[in-house]
Amino acid sequence: MLQSLDGSKVKTLSVNELNDLCEELRETIYETVMQCGGHLASNLGAVESTVALWYHFDFPKDKIVFDVGHQCYPYKLLSGRADRFSTLRQSGGISGFPKRKESEYDAYDTGHAGTSVSAALGIAKARDLKEEDFQVIAYIGDGSFNNGLVYEALNSIKILNTRILIVLNDNGMSISPTVGGMHDILSVLDKEKADGVKLLEQFGLRYIGVKDGNNLSEMLDAVSEAKEQLSSQSVLLHISTKKGKGYEFSEEHPTDTHGVPPVGSPKQQEYSHVLGETLCRLAEKDKRIAVVSAAMKESLGLERFFQQFPERAFDVGICEENACVLCSSMATQGIKPYYAIYSTFLQRAFDELIHDVCAMDLPVVFCIDRAGISGADGETHQGVFDLSYLSMIPNLTVLCPKDTEEFKKALEFSVEFEHPLAIRYPRAGRILFESKDDNGLSLRKWEYLHKADENSSVAVLATGERCLTVAMEVLKNVRAKGKDFHVINARFVKPLDLNFLTSLNCKHILTIEDNVQIGGFGSAVNTAVIHSKKSCTVRNFAYKDEFIVQGSVNELQKKYGVDSAEIQAYIEGFI
Amino acid sequence: MLQSLDGSKVKTLSVNELNDLCEELRETIYETVMQCGGHLASNLGAVESTVALWYHFDFPKDKIVFDVGHQCYPYKLLSGRADRFSTLRQSGGISGFPKRKESEYDAYDTGHAGTSVSAALGIAKARDLKEEDFQVIAYIGDGSFNNGLVYEALNSIKILNTRILIVLNDNGMSISPTVGGMHDILSVLDKEKADGVKLLEQFGLRYIGVKDGNNLSEMLDAVSEAKEQLSSQSVLLHISTKKGKGYEFSEEHPTDTHGVPPVGSPKQQEYSHVLGETLCRLAEKDKRIAVVSAAMKESLGLERFFQQFPERAFDVGICEENACVLCSSMATQGIKPYYAIYSTFLQRAFDELIHDVCAMDLPVVFCIDRAGISGADGETHQGVFDLSYLSMIPNLTVLCPKDTEEFKKALEFSVEFEHPLAIRYPRAGRILFESKDDNGLSLRKWEYLHKADENSSVAVLATGERCLTVAMEVLKNVRAKGKDFHVINARFVKPLDLNFLTSLNCKHILTIEDNVQIGGFGSAVNTAVIHSKKSCTVRNFAYKDEFIVQGSVNELQKKYGVDSAEIQAYIEGFI
Repeated sequence: MLQSLDGSKVKTLSVNELNDLCEELRETIYETVMQCGGHLASNLGAVESTVALWYHFDFPKDKIVFDVGHQCYPYKLLSGRADRFSTLRQSGGISGFPKRKESEYDAYDTGHAGTSVSAALGIAKARDLKEEDFQVIAYIGDGSFNNGLVYEALNSIKILNTRILIVLNDNGMSISPTVGGMHDILSVLDKEKADGVKLLEQFGLRYIGVKDGNNLSEMLDAVSEAKEQLSSQSVLLHISTKKGKGYEFSEEHPTDTHGVPPVGSPKQQEYSHVLGETLCRLAEKDKRIAVVSAAMKESLGLERFFQQFPERAFDVGICEENACVLCSSMATQGIKPYYAIYSTFLQRAFDELIHDVCAMDLPVVFCIDRAGISGADGETHQGVFDLSYLSMIPNLTVLCPKDTEEFKKALEFSVEFEHPLAIRYPRAGRILFESKDDNGLSLRKWEYLHKADENSSVAVLATGERCLTVAMEVLKNVRAKGKDFHVINARFVKPLDLNFLTSLNCKHILTIEDNVQIGGFGSAVNTAVIHSKKSCTVRNFAYKDEFIVQGSVNELQKKYGVDSAEIQAYIEGFI
Repeated sequence: MLQSLDGSKVKTLSVNELNDLCEELRETIYETVMQCGGHLASNLGAVESTVALWYHFDFPKDKIVFDVGHQCYPYKLLSGRADRFSTLRQSGGISGFPKRKESEYDAYDTGHAGTSVSAALGIAKARDLKEEDFQVIAYIGDGSFNNGLVYEALNSIKILNTRILIVLNDNGMSISPTVGGMHDILSVLDKEKADGVKLLEQFGLRYIGVKDGNNLSEMLDAVSEAKEQLSSQSVLLHISTKKGKGYEFSEEHPTDTHGVPPVGSPKQQEYSHVLGETLCRLAEKDKRIAVVSAAMKESLGLERFFQQFPERAFDVGICEENACVLCSSMATQGIKPYYAIYSTFLQRAFDELIHDVCAMDLPVVFCIDRAGISGADGETHQGVFDLSYLSMIPNLTVLCPKDTEEFKKALEFSVEFEHPLAIRYPRAGRILFESKDDNGLSLRKWEYLHKADENSSVAVLATGERCLTVAMEVLKNVRAKGKDFHVINARFVKPLDLNFLTSLNCKHILTIEDNVQIGGFGSAVNTAVIHSKKSCTVRNFAYKDEFIVQGSVNELQKKYGVDSAEIQAYIEGFI
């Protein structure tokens, strides 16, 4: 049915047919995610509510904004993308997130949490200004509902004097189980509606609750009521659903089946695993060590730490800013906080990083996972800005370990380091390079990973495992031809090892980084070279000034500016 | 009394003596602010509550975090700083904000809104971990209480399982009057306590309300009760106060007397005035234009716009992130939003700037006021990072007009510009430079502000009014000695005018910017020069990699790296 179904036909189906449609959606999602990887459990739970919305609303005339986007697969399947859905998250294929460029049905791009209510309000207000006539829906999970941005948006409903429908899909889970006071308030709503409703009325919302949001008939009735109410005021449609609905394993393991790799993906050593193990080891000896996470403890490798040191482990939900200020304030009292977070989500705590942690020069350690290109999640999830936005902040030291072994050393180094420290690393890692530094890391010190002849004219400064891997691959090819060059592990991006840089007696320097060029590692080397009046050329291999789409890490690295063939050709032009 | 008073003596005073103390505090604050400038109305309203806290708590053993810090003057006066208080906001003097380096009584530095509850929770949790015994207080105004970060913190009270006292000083004002749903909820609390209290209980808070927070006796009783409750749970002490209390003019004009310049300060033309007038003019012709502000419409020059176009002007309270997403979402529907904001506060919307506005390449215009060194407010308010954090974002154009006249042209240019645009400018401005471009601005095009002889070996690339003023001052001095150099108005910081740069036939290039060096304008020029293999030297005059303290703009510019004498000496070394 799905392949031939135009979403507008949903209205013509009987309840039985709609139930069949739900099953078909569920199967398609399951099968596709097993093939392509993607967000499974959240999408399975969103099937009936999405179908009910299609039944009563008119997309794309009416607009829907999916918060984060982890629940948009059923919607994508109903909006004319079923035939291409098997390309999910592949290069050139269907995005795992809403994308305006992909379809007129996608009203607003999302990827980070908490933007949907603001976005729906802005779209609705624009509608009012233009005197147009359509409905606007924010579809949000209870995990995102913890985010401060949602509160700011709720707070502005009356100011903006417009009408939206908020569908709060409450499955009790963020990626980890949802925590915090607001979720308790939502639970109270079920039991003691009167009080909760009064609260929501103050925000300008009419409350409608649905006990089983996976029951299609209930959902059809509730959406009908919500649509009617929406003619006069904003509505919160609060639905209880089951994350992973329909697949026993997923229902029982909603966290493990939140994001799923394709079947048959190789198991990799991950930096996150090293983070968890190392922090546990260090925390046994050092009672000052605490760990803070914003709803990502599993994917950051911190499960064991949370089990072993529950009193020193804090998951505050999808609240990146609050997590950052908790770290800085604990640090004022002599606690040593480790804030583990994905690179792209740390952007949310940028101001707190500057204004709280670094302005007070507090010894908080940022463990920045999924740095560099992260791959299949696309534009909103690439961690390619952090070297730039971190390097500009005074008092902050920025460290990119060359492999998982050096990551351990970096964490050991961090314990006694008395200033803000950022350690950034990709997901997959290996113990890759022979270590020259058995004594651990020293602040600012780079090392030769390969030292060529003293008269070698080319030095490659590469930072982090991925870029050193590229450099060493090129080195191997070049040496096979009897030529040679230096490869330097530029593990400290800030401060640069200026002594090392000055000591290099090369005519040609190359920098390689897993970050945009502007303001990043290469940019810092350019400035150092210009200021030192060294007479050498510098070429930066880094990402272009563009948002990087979805694809495989290797493919995207090449496409956007870190291409080993190009690096090799460039070097061979000199030697 | 104040000069000789140690805060710990407050406990020994009678209520009459305490009332006298309140009057003395008020007078001292008033007189000091008239001399030094500073935050008047908010501090006047906070006197009685602060005295009551001193009466019952033991500072600095107990810790207090002032949100933003606009209410910390009475506390500073009581904590051994009365004798130095006349140096308020002066170079080397008492800061207008809490500063740990200034006094052991200042537990946590603030300046941006909404951090206090998180910070108090972090300090309290650290106390618990260290098994210490003291109390922690967050003192926050109702304006800040709108901020999403506060919600994230409230949401984590139960997760953290610790106890703090939140004093919510509700004067009904942000800088502008407080707006939004949460403030309505607070009003309901007064009238219908039962419901509101239930809500707050879900967050883990016990509610205590005070009808007149400027009545010392009421405050003494309420703080006593709060302290008692605090032994078993977190407490929200909600007090109603009068902003500007005790000074009729200030009570009646709380917005005008929020931040006050020293008496006798010269009236300056301000960019904000030009912003307001120009946007009104443009909006008359173009119905797409809308304006968004986060509780700062007066200081951004937008009062007239809000009066003239109330349906297209949105003040969403201190919610920088929400304001940004409202802009991006309105832009998806063909509205042309102008988001006016201080440089330092835009840091709060950094992720939304990337993830919402720029990733979707939407035509939102950021009008970034108080860019560069802002002066007396110190570290937390300098706008010296924006050129760096803006330049690294794909799809974003960054423009620094050379004077207020060019700012008008920049705004005219912005109307038809179909991509994200950031225009940054300082507070004070003038129509300063003779315009060479009567046809308005063209994307990427720099101009000679002074073109020297073709064989001149030195070119100064300066961006924005302040830096061009420095360059022209140096030029005047140098020409008086019969020498000459080029001065270029590098108004587009991104994209750089590479054609112009390439066409320069100079041995020596200088860059001047009102921003940190790292990742900023000079950094971009360095990279361009390195990549072009131009054989010239480049020297960057920009701010050092440090947080910049309080002082006058001119003094700080010199001290941190933009010193006209140094620039002149450097140039005279070549010509």
